[in-house]
Amino acid sequence: MATIKEIANKLGIAVSTVSKGLNGASDISAEMRQLVLDTAVEMGYASKKMKATGTRKVCIFIENMDYENIEQFGYEIVVGFKLSAARRHWDVTVVPTNLNMQTAEKFDTYMLKNGYSGAFLLGFTLHDDWVWQLTKTTVPTVLLDNYIERNNHVGYVGTDNSEGIDLAVDHLNNLGHKNIAFLNGSKNSMVSEQRYQSFISSMTKHGLTADENLIEYGYYVPDCAKDHVPGFIRNGATAIMCASDLIASGVITEVVKHGLRVPEDVSVIGFDDLPIAASLTPPLTTIRQDRTDLGKSAFLLLDGLIHNVTISKLLLRAKFIQRESTAPCKSRDLSDL
Amino acid sequence: MATIKEIANKLGIAVSTVSKGLNGASDISAEMRQLVLDTAVEMGYASKKMKATGTRKVCIFIENMDYENIEQFGYEIVVGFKLSAARRHWDVTVVPTNLNMQTAEKFDTYMLKNGYSGAFLLGFTLHDDWVWQLTKTTVPTVLLDNYIERNNHVGYVGTDNSEGIDLAVDHLNNLGHKNIAFLNGSKNSMVSEQRYQSFISSMTKHGLTADENLIEYGYYVPDCAKDHVPGFIRNGATAIMCASDLIASGVITEVVKHGLRVPEDVSVIGFDDLPIAASLTPPLTTIRQDRTDLGKSAFLLLDGLIHNVTISKLLLRAKFIQRESTAPCKSRDLSDL
Repeated sequence: MATIKEIANKLGIAVSTVSKGLNGASDISAEMRQLVLDTAVEMGYASKKMKATGTRKVCIFIENMDYENIEQFGYEIVVGFKLSAARRHWDVTVVPTNLNMQTAEKFDTYMLKNGYSGAFLLGFTLHDDWVWQLTKTTVPTVLLDNYIERNNHVGYVGTDNSEGIDLAVDHLNNLGHKNIAFLNGSKNSMVSEQRYQSFISSMTKHGLTADENLIEYGYYVPDCAKDHVPGFIRNGATAIMCASDLIASGVITEVVKHGLRVPEDVSVIGFDDLPIAASLTPPLTTIRQDRTDLGKSAFLLLDGLIHNVTISKLLLRAKFIQRESTAPCKSRDLSDL
Repeated sequence: MATIKEIANKLGIAVSTVSKGLNGASDISAEMRQLVLDTAVEMGYASKKMKATGTRKVCIFIENMDYENIEQFGYEIVVGFKLSAARRHWDVTVVPTNLNMQTAEKFDTYMLKNGYSGAFLLGFTLHDDWVWQLTKTTVPTVLLDNYIERNNHVGYVGTDNSEGIDLAVDHLNNLGHKNIAFLNGSKNSMVSEQRYQSFISSMTKHGLTADENLIEYGYYVPDCAKDHVPGFIRNGATAIMCASDLIASGVITEVVKHGLRVPEDVSVIGFDDLPIAASLTPPLTTIRQDRTDLGKSAFLLLDGLIHNVTISKLLLRAKFIQRESTAPCKSRDLSDL
């Protein structure tokens, strides 16, 4: 860990100037401040500084995720995080981000400049600049649904996808389904990959064949159903598991368009249990991710990291919610189509 | 959840008698009390009662694990748990257990009778009676190194074995070792199974062959080295990874008995970083499990479960500790032996 003096030496400037840069004094230029901050980050000064400040400020960065009303995936996560943070007397700022912001400034510099002791990142993908930078960060950081190897300052919070998928397969297997299709989320996502692996191993565990013609990657939006449901139906699927409730809503629409009924001809299962799940026609059987608990757990994890408890992964239980979009399998006659 | 009245109805006794049984009043017989408690547990009354009591009492059950002095594996785990519990104003009782105790009374009944709101189980195996009962318990419970499927009241805390094993393989691979042996712990252990799987996948990831002649299960004691080290040496191992520091200490003794040197002829890596690791000859390169953090995290998890945050798994980072028991590979001439 560098000292202020070492930063001053490296830049050939006075210690007082470094101190002004770090503390955001108004009598140095913005360029000089940026230089001081970048150098401080580069020399590993960041976490030391943040521990020394008495402020208890953390932030939530959100990208590619709706969170502004209760219907949306991110809403309760943010609420849960804030609840737990408030109980421990931490201030939380929500900062919507985008690629420009990530290119403009390094993650550690942003955190140092704004005096945050830690961050929770929602909706980022493994391709985001800031996520790349997390392999080296010294700032306590929690990622939803993403995992960074070998950095003790970064933790991963999520739902146990493996148990979730297994609960869904178990349910369909008990209903007599054998030709189970799986419409996954987007390909470049750790969660999609976990769900794919979990689907294969749960099918195998249940003595069922995971047919490659019945497994597709889509996107986490209803619209992707159009591209894949026709193939699933042609290939004899009697049940379709979806990587999200939104995908499932698109699947139901598409199945009905083909003149088939949900659940009488094709059972459909979602994932997440968003508020819309219960109000679809028919109400959706799904795997619940408890989003308030995800938020609370993210704060627990972040609080641990800030206090040097190097938690790597924290997974919540997935809960099976049975509604009306699944029914016993009656083998479809393919000539119906 | 049953009410006191329902328990009374079921047993055909007065509500006041049920109440006395649940609260341990002295004017009913021990037999009647046991009957009331067993019935209450059976009818799902346990967790309700425990939530209603204002006492903040949890307990640690320990079996097959030494914890009484700082040299031993369990010591810092208990300390870490107590530290975190004290900070949140919970009382902790440490209860050494054995098979007799588990046979004498059901887990839930024991918890209800003693007014504990939750438990942390250390050193139990999947074959213990109480662990079997955990599939159905409604008492918030955390297991070290063991996982119970599909029960939202039970969580698993441990170290990320996969990353730990991968760090060790990475280190040996960088030193040029190819014939890497793995002396695992006992076979009926979830952790041993995880480490086995992790070893295979890490070797594969590094482009190395996991040779079945170089993989054995032992026990978590030094003595097991005698049975397996001779075979490893005969089969050309230049490095031996061990599932614990105690196993590694036995391995070093055994390697030396064969007229070979550690690390010049054979590199040895442990797991755990117990206090003895640094004082072995040579000081042991190992994978550290931070036991204080395991204890702290176990409490965090238990606190979550008590407050209905259904955490399933909480894993800590494994840390690579380089000392002097590993060195660059110089291929051994098998005719040396």
